[in-house]
Amino acid sequence: MLRKTIIAVLALAGLSAVAVPLSAQVRPDVLVQQRQAAMVLKGKYFYGHLRPMAQGKIPYEAALVARDIAFLDALARMPWDGFAPATKGVKSGATPAVFTEAGKFKEAQESYLAEVAKLSALANKGDEPALRAQILTVNKSCAGCHDAFRERR
Amino acid sequence: MLRKTIIAVLALAGLSAVAVPLSAQVRPDVLVQQRQAAMVLKGKYFYGHLRPMAQGKIPYEAALVARDIAFLDALARMPWDGFAPATKGVKSGATPAVFTEAGKFKEAQESYLAEVAKLSALANKGDEPALRAQILTVNKSCAGCHDAFRERR
Repeated sequence: MLRKTIIAVLALAGLSAVAVPLSAQVRPDVLVQQRQAAMVLKGKYFYGHLRPMAQGKIPYEAALVARDIAFLDALARMPWDGFAPATKGVKSGATPAVFTEAGKFKEAQESYLAEVAKLSALANKGDEPALRAQILTVNKSCAGCHDAFRERR
Repeated sequence: MLRKTIIAVLALAGLSAVAVPLSAQVRPDVLVQQRQAAMVLKGKYFYGHLRPMAQGKIPYEAALVARDIAFLDALARMPWDGFAPATKGVKSGATPAVFTEAGKFKEAQESYLAEVAKLSALANKGDEPALRAQILTVNKSCAGCHDAFRERR
């Protein structure tokens, strides 16, 4: 019961880290494949519609923005348990800082999740300027993490 | 709640297919990478917790089941625009039937999405036996599509 309560609290806090005990049973290369899959799909929905719509590069479509924010809200919680210490030796774009500065990496995740949560809260309020602005704030938050924790490419 | 309702309405209206015009601008190999990413993550959440919990192979945790059903509900709508005709020549696990029997493939997707929608509708009702049964029905629905449209491996 306590564990369920903790899971519920973590879930409310937007933390998908509750899967850690189970992810400990998953092969490290599979964990890397799964976290990379979450990043690929965040790219699909964030760079595919949300950012170019916020930037005015493609026409703004409210229904598509709402759908993609809902997708992003789920995807944003998926990669983090895939950065388990066991994956340290698996070739990927993660910098060594992911493991040597785990506290800062965690802070960067939480900051990103907080910005995505703000975006989700705006999703169906019909305030297009606020949505556009928050999409660009989320974009900066992605970059904030990539700068230190993803190899340049 | 409102957000969930709106998402459900959009899903019923088939609006998850609206990305097709944009996907036409994405490179075929990227479309394949994105659809494979959605399958990888469906595997993470469906085979990681939902199915083994439904089968009684690992302890049933209601909060985790609810979270993973929400993730699955989003992921289940992500792969399909990635099976664009332009991807026909890209090496993948898709069988030729994906393109030669597009109507049947579409039917299989819709049948799967209908079963996932039933699962989502059950997610927060606390009826564990019904949830377990529907998880196993979704599992059959995955297989129904894989049999004809994914190469054996």
